[in-house]
Amino acid sequence: MIAELAIDPIRETERIIPFIAGAVVRAGAKGICLGLSGGLDSAVVAALCARALSPEKVTALLLPERDSSPDSVSDAREFAEKLTVSYRVQDLTAALNALGCYESGGSEIVRLKSLARGAVRLFPKAARKGYLASLGGGAGAEFQKFVAFYRMKHRLRLVAIYREAESRSLIVASCANRTEFETGFFVRYGDDSGEIAPIKHLFKMQVFQLGAHLGLPERILGKKPSPDLFAGMKDEELMGMSYEKVDSILFLLKEALPDAAIASRAGTDEESVRYVKEITRLSQRFREPTASLL
Amino acid sequence: MIAELAIDPIRETERIIPFIAGAVVRAGAKGICLGLSGGLDSAVVAALCARALSPEKVTALLLPERDSSPDSVSDAREFAEKLTVSYRVQDLTAALNALGCYESGGSEIVRLKSLARGAVRLFPKAARKGYLASLGGGAGAEFQKFVAFYRMKHRLRLVAIYREAESRSLIVASCANRTEFETGFFVRYGDDSGEIAPIKHLFKMQVFQLGAHLGLPERILGKKPSPDLFAGMKDEELMGMSYEKVDSILFLLKEALPDAAIASRAGTDEESVRYVKEITRLSQRFREPTASLL
Repeated sequence: MIAELAIDPIRETERIIPFIAGAVVRAGAKGICLGLSGGLDSAVVAALCARALSPEKVTALLLPERDSSPDSVSDAREFAEKLTVSYRVQDLTAALNALGCYESGGSEIVRLKSLARGAVRLFPKAARKGYLASLGGGAGAEFQKFVAFYRMKHRLRLVAIYREAESRSLIVASCANRTEFETGFFVRYGDDSGEIAPIKHLFKMQVFQLGAHLGLPERILGKKPSPDLFAGMKDEELMGMSYEKVDSILFLLKEALPDAAIASRAGTDEESVRYVKEITRLSQRFREPTASLL
Repeated sequence: MIAELAIDPIRETERIIPFIAGAVVRAGAKGICLGLSGGLDSAVVAALCARALSPEKVTALLLPERDSSPDSVSDAREFAEKLTVSYRVQDLTAALNALGCYESGGSEIVRLKSLARGAVRLFPKAARKGYLASLGGGAGAEFQKFVAFYRMKHRLRLVAIYREAESRSLIVASCANRTEFETGFFVRYGDDSGEIAPIKHLFKMQVFQLGAHLGLPERILGKKPSPDLFAGMKDEELMGMSYEKVDSILFLLKEALPDAAIASRAGTDEESVRYVKEITRLSQRFREPTASLL
């Protein structure tokens, strides 16, 4: 990791906590609701919300479905209990089934993906090609079905989170981080959405540092990040690059250095720099607000 | 209606059509997907999309659920067939049921609302109080459950629309209009969402003019606008004011006239002007992007 990605976690915490508390006050809300996945980002956001408000004003929803890892719910539950925030488990399998999610060809592809997982691990370039296709939107029909299949899951999570939030006058916190946002590793109107996004300004490697400072459990800190949508695939496998490298490149790209200099400083090759530039460019459309003539 | 709300429908059409066609090209998409409700706004957007692309590149989703009016699907189906766009009916009742929508206390309130409907018609001020409470978010627990209940339906429609769109490389058109947008008469991450919102710059009275120019069926033009979410309530009953008055006031507010002058020009009273200002102010939070420290 390049040195510039180091944060002062005390200062960060002192900056985020009033941001969260102020948003709740301004909205006239009674607290905050968020999805707790058992992974790093939502655990960091939950811990920050519990500090900013008080734990009883934070509601975590645990939203497993057929393809979730069983560990996700147990890790999230354990952490919610540790934080003493209120939480509720709501299984989304039946609703996804009623929407036809599991019959959409997506499941078939998940099985193929599962077989391909070993290959993707050995050949990150195959993963990069797949990730570029998912952002470009112009891939083959079967691949597009797969994209629609997993994005639907994220969006349904948001429906469940907002239902809980609005029925109890809470605002919604998105757990998206800056790496996901800049690389398009999020679902529009899914995990990017909410009234506030308390860690959206932090790259993933910075969220790790903050999580360690906040005293997150070793199980959560040590877990390989995963969208937990299908077949246990990890973020880094899907993107075809480690977070350490992605974050270093994203950071250095802001300084407008030549690709070769960025590659050298990030400890990688120029092709990887070009790849990160390309996913940043292709994902721009997901970051744009709805276009209108207003 | 004040004279300033009159549009030149030919000029509007000539402005919107390249906007739609250009968005599809820029996204590298194969066409457009939208929800077709049987009401005015989505019929206008569908007709414009069919002209901007060709009908076979437009996919309309008809998304009824338990509480929809039976006329909605038949009107939407008839219009989709007239336009010769492709369409699909997907009933969302089972998915909403699996999410607990109908057991959430919302249905109970719908029955009460249904009884209250006559009262709201006779006493628009009661409706205004209810609408202000729905925007404010700080109403009683039972009322908040009701708000969550109907907003969930709009959000689930978006999930279904995006699933169709993404599995076939289409972009999503939102059918929100300017009146809804400025008064908060929309659901965040629901009917406001999509890649493009082709009529978001038009007040409802202007959408009517465009619909008449586009030759929409009399059944759709003559129908009282309704969110079609519960008990047949109409937009104007829920807002406690006619679209003609709301639009006139919204338009005149941009000219920074005194309330009395606006009331006089719009043919209404100052209390109505203050009400429109208040719903504009309260709904501001639904128009703001997700807040972050980025």
